[in-house]
Amino acid sequence: MADKQDEKKVTPRSQDFAAWYNEVIARAELADYSPVRGCIVFRPDGFAIWEALRDELDRRIKRTGARNAYFPLFIPQSFLQKEAQHVEGFAPEVAVVTHGGGKELEEPLIVRPTSETIINHMFAQWIHSHRDLPLMINQWCNVVRWEMRTRPFLRTAEFLWQEGHTAHATRTEAEEEALTMLEVYRGFVEDYLAVPLVSGRKSAAERFPGAEETYAIESLMADGRALQCGTSHYLGQNFARAFEIRFLDEHNQLQHPHQTSWGVSTRLLGAIIMTHGDDQGLRLPPAVAPWQAAVVPIWRKDEERQAVLGAARAVREVLERAAVRVKLDDREGLTPGFKFNDWEMRGVPVRIEIGPRDVAAGSAMLARRDQLGKQGKAPASLDAIATHVSKLLDEIQKSLYAQARDAMRANTRQFDDYARLRAQMEGEGGGGMADVYWCGSAACEIRVREETRATCRAIPLGQNGAPGRCIVCGQAAKERAFFAKAY
Amino acid sequence: MADKQDEKKVTPRSQDFAAWYNEVIARAELADYSPVRGCIVFRPDGFAIWEALRDELDRRIKRTGARNAYFPLFIPQSFLQKEAQHVEGFAPEVAVVTHGGGKELEEPLIVRPTSETIINHMFAQWIHSHRDLPLMINQWCNVVRWEMRTRPFLRTAEFLWQEGHTAHATRTEAEEEALTMLEVYRGFVEDYLAVPLVSGRKSAAERFPGAEETYAIESLMADGRALQCGTSHYLGQNFARAFEIRFLDEHNQLQHPHQTSWGVSTRLLGAIIMTHGDDQGLRLPPAVAPWQAAVVPIWRKDEERQAVLGAARAVREVLERAAVRVKLDDREGLTPGFKFNDWEMRGVPVRIEIGPRDVAAGSAMLARRDQLGKQGKAPASLDAIATHVSKLLDEIQKSLYAQARDAMRANTRQFDDYARLRAQMEGEGGGGMADVYWCGSAACEIRVREETRATCRAIPLGQNGAPGRCIVCGQAAKERAFFAKAY
Repeated sequence: MADKQDEKKVTPRSQDFAAWYNEVIARAELADYSPVRGCIVFRPDGFAIWEALRDELDRRIKRTGARNAYFPLFIPQSFLQKEAQHVEGFAPEVAVVTHGGGKELEEPLIVRPTSETIINHMFAQWIHSHRDLPLMINQWCNVVRWEMRTRPFLRTAEFLWQEGHTAHATRTEAEEEALTMLEVYRGFVEDYLAVPLVSGRKSAAERFPGAEETYAIESLMADGRALQCGTSHYLGQNFARAFEIRFLDEHNQLQHPHQTSWGVSTRLLGAIIMTHGDDQGLRLPPAVAPWQAAVVPIWRKDEERQAVLGAARAVREVLERAAVRVKLDDREGLTPGFKFNDWEMRGVPVRIEIGPRDVAAGSAMLARRDQLGKQGKAPASLDAIATHVSKLLDEIQKSLYAQARDAMRANTRQFDDYARLRAQMEGEGGGGMADVYWCGSAACEIRVREETRATCRAIPLGQNGAPGRCIVCGQAAKERAFFAKAY
Repeated sequence: MADKQDEKKVTPRSQDFAAWYNEVIARAELADYSPVRGCIVFRPDGFAIWEALRDELDRRIKRTGARNAYFPLFIPQSFLQKEAQHVEGFAPEVAVVTHGGGKELEEPLIVRPTSETIINHMFAQWIHSHRDLPLMINQWCNVVRWEMRTRPFLRTAEFLWQEGHTAHATRTEAEEEALTMLEVYRGFVEDYLAVPLVSGRKSAAERFPGAEETYAIESLMADGRALQCGTSHYLGQNFARAFEIRFLDEHNQLQHPHQTSWGVSTRLLGAIIMTHGDDQGLRLPPAVAPWQAAVVPIWRKDEERQAVLGAARAVREVLERAAVRVKLDDREGLTPGFKFNDWEMRGVPVRIEIGPRDVAAGSAMLARRDQLGKQGKAPASLDAIATHVSKLLDEIQKSLYAQARDAMRANTRQFDDYARLRAQMEGEGGGGMADVYWCGSAACEIRVREETRATCRAIPLGQNGAPGRCIVCGQAAKERAFFAKAY
């Protein structure tokens, strides 16, 4: 029989969102703490989400013309120091290898916190002529940043990501590439993870160390705090100069290429959990769910068992053939009620219940994870079960996005009065997303951060609204910006 | 016009196999040396081979029931020391992180050389009951072994691999799992990489540190030396004891599970290169070739250009729709002859030549990489080009395997006289594979190694031939074994 401990509900989100987050990750078996400070273990159900999203994003990245490569984990310490802002940004949080093969190394190696330096060292050897451009490389790998305060998926000492690095003949082409990738990320996160976003450029204070411009996609979690989901940087010629990358242009002149880099990480798993989860546990978008459907056979008497299990197995087979990722829950000694809760906790989009009456009627009951209770349940004919389930999965993908988009809209507010912005950020509910005019000065940005803990998340691109007044200083402001407290 | 340097042939294999190997890797742009000692950069064409083989092997591993997970890169130094043979095997070659976030660490962390220790630490927390077994986990990751002498793909300080780790309730089940994975590897390497193998168990001297039995697949490279392509270990209860993994069996008794681990690495790229390559360069099995076909348009006069390029683009489109990985070589300023050599160097299985006469005749010339010269060329109708190319790719996959299998057979010899074995290993041609009776004693194994540099590569399973006499000591021997000089 089911362990009583396992049947306990998780802490409600409204009571303690951070506790809810950690409990859901543990109970849905997405990840576990490891014996290494700040590092987690991705358990199979957590890693399968990463695999699904990685494979789809990989296809989209390749369609832009970038190709995958792999560069060393270790970077000579001197490389990091070649770009002034880059070293300032990363030096405090690197892990350092000092010994190898039983001996002290002549030059310590750092474990990559990001690979601009070593990749650009190689680019200098591969780029000679304008015919070598554009060079567009992507890498899926692990990186290490020695963070002091870590949280599963959101901030860990080691994490997995992809980092794209490109070099172009002109500034215009590189700027376009940075924006192309921002759009690839936006489309991917909204379509595939069903996570709604705002996007735009970052303020100077929030830029990547070494970049001339940083663009980002940002989402709003269910607790009212923003999460940066991906960034794309226009690096200008900073790294090209530092690493002496030069090419002969069409007029036989030596030039430095213009560059970009862009990345998303396992942090996206945190976005999925905190955007869609509810007090019953995880809710996974079908596109990335390790199990899109769980079949729960139900019987009381032994004589019912055979028929019910037979029908359940047939459903599994039909769904597998239709490429639905389906799990038959034929565990013994657990009640159907326990199994229902368990699959709800794990966020499986569709639960398929099959009992003796269903078998007799040639049907099964489909229960939607995005609509709990009776309104989310409907019988489906066993003859057409694959069609029913596939259609339902499409609907759930869209419905999770719509629910999250509505929640984000409801928690995004325009302010023209600083006191009200401040009150909102100080109040309960995390603050939400504030949409305000800002003059763009560092002084006003710092004041907002210090007084409200909100930071500038994104300045939307292509604004051509009427000019207004900065919410902080009241001076003329040309642009609106999103501010929020952030993870 | 083509750089003269690029048109130079590589060193013939017969003259200097090691030089040939390095030159082919550089000229085919598979990998490059990195500024970090012993680490290479996988360039896009090299990494694409890894991606193709990784994706296929991943599917085959998942079909056995294992699921992917991800464990930390870093392992506390104390973990390595828990299993006596394991620490002895790996301690001399680890890289050690001593500083993180600007401070000296209390306990140094080693960069994983393999993950038995940290994975079994987690298994101890996940395994409680026989219902938790079997637990079958696979991980794709980077590992680091501080090797003194490195060679691209074959032996590098950092390499990529998969490592499977399983726990079972019984010895029999674990032993079967180790053999199942040996067979998965054998089928995969032979079918997909077209690399013929011998397989079997390792001698005690060649076992993985901490294993009770190691099984391996071994191939014979074109220079007569063997390459270990994958291993599967039955670990017994050694790690379970060291990491205190226990489960309640069906009779409520506490037991240690029986375990396995198994892995293949980026070394397989070396196997592909050294098995199939010839003096013109790389020859890639279609299954893993980044480009399965290259279209080379040929024209002399400007008025031919348009029609030829149009036909070439149409061929690319048709092949792309048929899921053939095809590259249109429309580079300007290079002669067709240069392009032919370039695609031969890169090992592309099928070259498609299209000139004005071909366009007029509605055909193209298909040239096979596995059969150079006229006998490998045949015209194909443009109307049915996708069918022709797909069929040809299947044939080339089989033909490369058959050629390699014949070469391996020709270079595998039975000996019953030690002097002749020794002469063979000392002679030119690398020695090849020797198939001999061996009594199994460490003394005879050491003598062979010291006098001939050949080691025991594999003892075939399920032998039931007539017993014979050990090739070294002349004592009764029950089994034959493969000996060869190895990479």
